[in-house]
Amino acid sequence: MIDLRSDTVTKPTEEMRKAMYTADVGDDVYREDPTVRELEETAAEILGKEEALFVTSGTQGNQIAVLTHCRPGQELLLEEESHIFYYESGAVAALAGVQTRTIPGHRGAMDPQDVLNAIRTDDIHYPETGLICLENTHNRAGGAVIPVENMKAIYSIAQKNNVPVHLDGARLFNAAAAAGVDVKEFAKNTDTVQICLSKGLGAPVGSIIAGDAEFITTARKWRKRLGGGMRQAGVIAAPGLIGLTKMKDRLGEDQWNARILAEAIESVPGMKLARQPETNIVVADVAGLNITSDVFVERLRSEGVISGTFGPTFVRFVTHYDVNEDQIQEAIEAIAKVARQ
Amino acid sequence: MIDLRSDTVTKPTEEMRKAMYTADVGDDVYREDPTVRELEETAAEILGKEEALFVTSGTQGNQIAVLTHCRPGQELLLEEESHIFYYESGAVAALAGVQTRTIPGHRGAMDPQDVLNAIRTDDIHYPETGLICLENTHNRAGGAVIPVENMKAIYSIAQKNNVPVHLDGARLFNAAAAAGVDVKEFAKNTDTVQICLSKGLGAPVGSIIAGDAEFITTARKWRKRLGGGMRQAGVIAAPGLIGLTKMKDRLGEDQWNARILAEAIESVPGMKLARQPETNIVVADVAGLNITSDVFVERLRSEGVISGTFGPTFVRFVTHYDVNEDQIQEAIEAIAKVARQ
Amino acid sequence: MIDLRSDTVTKPTEEMRKAMYTADVGDDVYREDPTVRELEETAAEILGKEEALFVTSGTQGNQIAVLTHCRPGQELLLEEESHIFYYESGAVAALAGVQTRTIPGHRGAMDPQDVLNAIRTDDIHYPETGLICLENTHNRAGGAVIPVENMKAIYSIAQKNNVPVHLDGARLFNAAAAAGVDVKEFAKNTDTVQICLSKGLGAPVGSIIAGDAEFITTARKWRKRLGGGMRQAGVIAAPGLIGLTKMKDRLGEDQWNARILAEAIESVPGMKLARQPETNIVVADVAGLNITSDVFVERLRSEGVISGTFGPTFVRFVTHYDVNEDQIQEAIEAIAKVARQ
Amino acid sequence: MIDLRSDTVTKPTEEMRKAMYTADVGDDVYREDPTVRELEETAAEILGKEEALFVTSGTQGNQIAVLTHCRPGQELLLEEESHIFYYESGAVAALAGVQTRTIPGHRGAMDPQDVLNAIRTDDIHYPETGLICLENTHNRAGGAVIPVENMKAIYSIAQKNNVPVHLDGARLFNAAAAAGVDVKEFAKNTDTVQICLSKGLGAPVGSIIAGDAEFITTARKWRKRLGGGMRQAGVIAAPGLIGLTKMKDRLGEDQWNARILAEAIESVPGMKLARQPETNIVVADVAGLNITSDVFVERLRSEGVISGTFGPTFVRFVTHYDVNEDQIQEAIEAIAKVARQ
Ligand SMILES: [Ca+2]
Ligand SMILES: [Ca+2]
Ligand SMILES: [Ca+2]
Ligand SMILES: [Ca+2]
Ligand SMILES: [Ca+2]
Ligand SMILES: [Ca+2]
Repeated sequence: MIDLRSDTVTKPTEEMRKAMYTADVGDDVYREDPTVRELEETAAEILGKEEALFVTSGTQGNQIAVLTHCRPGQELLLEEESHIFYYESGAVAALAGVQTRTIPGHRGAMDPQDVLNAIRTDDIHYPETGLICLENTHNRAGGAVIPVENMKAIYSIAQKNNVPVHLDGARLFNAAAAAGVDVKEFAKNTDTVQICLSKGLGAPVGSIIAGDAEFITTARKWRKRLGGGMRQAGVIAAPGLIGLTKMKDRLGEDQWNARILAEAIESVPGMKLARQPETNIVVADVAGLNITSDVFVERLRSEGVISGTFGPTFVRFVTHYDVNEDQIQEAIEAIAKVARQ
Repeated sequence: MIDLRSDTVTKPTEEMRKAMYTADVGDDVYREDPTVRELEETAAEILGKEEALFVTSGTQGNQIAVLTHCRPGQELLLEEESHIFYYESGAVAALAGVQTRTIPGHRGAMDPQDVLNAIRTDDIHYPETGLICLENTHNRAGGAVIPVENMKAIYSIAQKNNVPVHLDGARLFNAAAAAGVDVKEFAKNTDTVQICLSKGLGAPVGSIIAGDAEFITTARKWRKRLGGGMRQAGVIAAPGLIGLTKMKDRLGEDQWNARILAEAIESVPGMKLARQPETNIVVADVAGLNITSDVFVERLRSEGVISGTFGPTFVRFVTHYDVNEDQIQEAIEAIAKVARQ
Repeated sequence: MIDLRSDTVTKPTEEMRKAMYTADVGDDVYREDPTVRELEETAAEILGKEEALFVTSGTQGNQIAVLTHCRPGQELLLEEESHIFYYESGAVAALAGVQTRTIPGHRGAMDPQDVLNAIRTDDIHYPETGLICLENTHNRAGGAVIPVENMKAIYSIAQKNNVPVHLDGARLFNAAAAAGVDVKEFAKNTDTVQICLSKGLGAPVGSIIAGDAEFITTARKWRKRLGGGMRQAGVIAAPGLIGLTKMKDRLGEDQWNARILAEAIESVPGMKLARQPETNIVVADVAGLNITSDVFVERLRSEGVISGTFGPTFVRFVTHYDVNEDQIQEAIEAIAKVARQ
Repeated sequence: MIDLRSDTVTKPTEEMRKAMYTADVGDDVYREDPTVRELEETAAEILGKEEALFVTSGTQGNQIAVLTHCRPGQELLLEEESHIFYYESGAVAALAGVQTRTIPGHRGAMDPQDVLNAIRTDDIHYPETGLICLENTHNRAGGAVIPVENMKAIYSIAQKNNVPVHLDGARLFNAAAAAGVDVKEFAKNTDTVQICLSKGLGAPVGSIIAGDAEFITTARKWRKRLGGGMRQAGVIAAPGLIGLTKMKDRLGEDQWNARILAEAIESVPGMKLARQPETNIVVADVAGLNITSDVFVERLRSEGVISGTFGPTFVRFVTHYDVNEDQIQEAIEAIAKVARQ
């Protein structure tokens, strides 16, 4: 099977497996796991933040950030299809007691003026605006890159209003690869950032949150409450470290493959792109085939290619390390075949 | 001063004051206050629900409804400028752990199709849709009446999807007066409803929530947790009972005064209506005067008329029992004078 | 019926009813109700605190205090039978996300050393100790007075450890009357205090919380979230003001009546006192009559006297303004009669 | 260094490392990781429950259980030094909004009668009793085994009162080894159970919760909200599976070593046992040495042995796979040396 559902399906590489086999470990609850510490220090440096914390998932990293930045009764501003709002099971309200106020974006980017307008003034009827969350690349906008300039403008507004900014950078390295800039350029326009090791970076498990030392100290305690404190976590930090230091430089390939796939889809009669891909996510509209995305995904699966529905007529394909250029060609053939049915 | 900020400013009438003076009371925590019981039974009957509960405010009634209907991790669908989302200090997240998902409405009414689309499917990434809240009349839509047909369509969708519906009917009697129908016509398209006694109905304090017996039993416990359980509450239930039985029939006057005020404002050079008033709320746009609403409100106050800002250039006027037709004429003159400055 | 269940059953006096009838009111959400303001200023002065806030019940006052002092994930130290733990429906966890850590007391007073031992050290496994709550008089300890010296010792420990102290002083005026000291002597050994107007002070509804200005500002917002913000609340503040200024000086009578009742009970064959009364609460043990408290309470009710169960064989009597000395004598006769059955 | 702080410090064995290296993995969020599924099925079978769920820690497993069983406003009954109350950072209140009601135990076991007395009756002032938690072996009681009979008596009371029972069985296999019974004997007197893979069982990371299918479905969603949903989690499930199937049979050795250590400590002048060890935890009292536990632990560390403080004069030693009998002898010599200082 050629699995294009998500870059989360990447399996650990041989090098990663060896790293798990040989990882130097200790009890990380006592902060004695050298591999975890190395991962956290490396991540902090790459992201340009003071400290970093290893967590078990992107959702956990985002939730800890919200719990650490906010108090119950505050309001969180975020794009209306952002992962934190859309795909985290309502956790920000359930765990942090924070109200979500969503802003419609353009290709995932909120207009800074809209953000400014949504910041609450001081009034007993209003929640206080406690946090602004950004997402880059933006998943539901089809892997769109939020431009550094947009982030900068929002961060400037946030700082003037004493509101912190958190970046859900689950695919931040894809954004950096596409924009041709260092991840630090994005990260510096935020107070805190979350990145995933288990998507394009190929690690089996884990994410990182980074920020200043005070933030990480409180975040570590919230991680404990959520049960994210692990013992000999070095065994999973080791492949994460490889992802972080070696895999990030090959994300251009995924983007290249996405471009090839997108161009092929554009030429399939009855199919079109929902939008031009910017990174490793391709969203196709199958409305012209007069079938729903459910049906398309099912038929394509029986041709050996796994994709995902992304709305009634939208189908999502995500390129990643475990699918090479030859397999992309095979996938294209399968897509064309299904479209002809 | 002629106070047109809100119908909440209504002061108790002489009859209400006498009712407080003579009210038969008991300890309502033991459910021995006869006046509270009479108010609750009367309200249940008027609203066509099995039981009712006296609470100290509209916010408390709405919050208790959300706490009773929902569990943490669920999602609440509501109009994007509804009171529960906009003006209740983020309490639904802080107290009930429920995520708000807002839908833009047209004159306060959500498109039933949008509601249907926003109901979450069964997926581990999604919060469950736990409640739909409506608001009638809709405050920020300028006192707009949500048509019975719209409520019926939404309630039908809700029932098909096993999602309860709560109505924030803080000004439901104004809606009924404007639509010329009984409040039951609105209430029957909901599971639970909240009405305010202290706005157009003129009581000093209090609201009612109504629903089935099981709902009220659980709601009573949440009221206790919020500290809304009171002792000899009959002293405030007594004026509420007068509001509920006698004042509701005079809300047509407030609507009439709002219409007079609106027509006058339309003829003031530089001013226009933000929208045609449907009930007792008039929203004027002062942009044509080249001043902000803040400035306008302040200048008008020095002419003896109190109004409220409702956005950068919008000013809100609310008619009510304590402002008679003569005072409306005085207010119109003051408005015209300020507009000429 | 002679109702000795609780001093909460007190009904408003004629003077209080007149005060409601004539109360000068305004919209307290805009802070324009002069009677509420007068009540709050008077209460702050009497309690020796910077500011005060009118709330609808003792439970609401206590919950607002916990919400204002604490953050989720903190721990609250309090006596194991204190009202906040025992009788507030688990609200401190439900609303404030705060863990209760209970300490067994002696006649309601916690040993300062036990309090010190229960304060958590800095460890990732531990909640932070966020608040210490005291209760004076202590309801379940039979109206016991917590000595000023005990409060002082605990407050000193709290301050050394940067933990605030809140006093549930629902019956603080009874404590002051019994100890012969001003309520300020108790209140000064706390950061914040709650007092009830509707118990011994005889008002129909309401409580007060007091503390410094910053505390009250945040508390006011939490009151809004709980729905405790009221409109023309002056109508209930007016009788509260009478309770606060005039009724507090007659609490000695209730104590006197409790003493008479207690002495009579001691002489009834088969009955004894669970403990010597210190204020207006008398707890009798009916084990020697070979009946449960349920049976005793029911039989006594059919003799025209209402009391309450307080454990399997304990019965509670609370003296108050609405039961005079003659009625106490009648109650004594009824008790003796039931005991002979 | 000989590390006797905790059995959490166990490092993965060579066999476990090989298992990680070769683990068959998939994306467990889609439930496609065969190793995770095998672990969950094996665990369910061993524990005698319908289904099981892999989580990242014991704390996470316990918290998910509380979130799944309870609603905010309920009360949780548990032993006063239980891990959930003592060592989980107040998470049950912070996340689940549940009030803790603690009961003092005897060697970690609550008296069933005390549990019965603590179950709340139906009263508007009371939280509903939502869950009873047991802990076996009981950590702070020095690894004490809660007898099956005690669990059975409590479970019977719980069932009669419709209250579910959760078992924190972080060290349940140690209890089973000591009692000479199958873990199922304990687990059948509960609704749900949590076991740790990373303590005596030697795995680097992870725990299991088990219960009926409906419980696990809801638990899976709460795991997602807490961020415990992982991708290629098979890499850590693989060593967990070895722990679960192979290591559990060698826990008798740890118990044997604890016994040897305890007997030696009893013969050291100035030291005595805080209690007789039942499993792999030895608690010594150093009061007779006229030093605090802090000082003792520090001096012992400089002799190459790591222990932990467990109160002002109590020191805890935990035996496990990574410390063999020879090292126990070395530890004994070091302890005797420090005691002579
Ligand atoms: Ca992966
Ligand atoms: Ca009013
Ligand atoms: Ca909360
Ligand atoms: Ca009263
Ligand atoms: Ca381990
Ligand atoms: Ca909560």
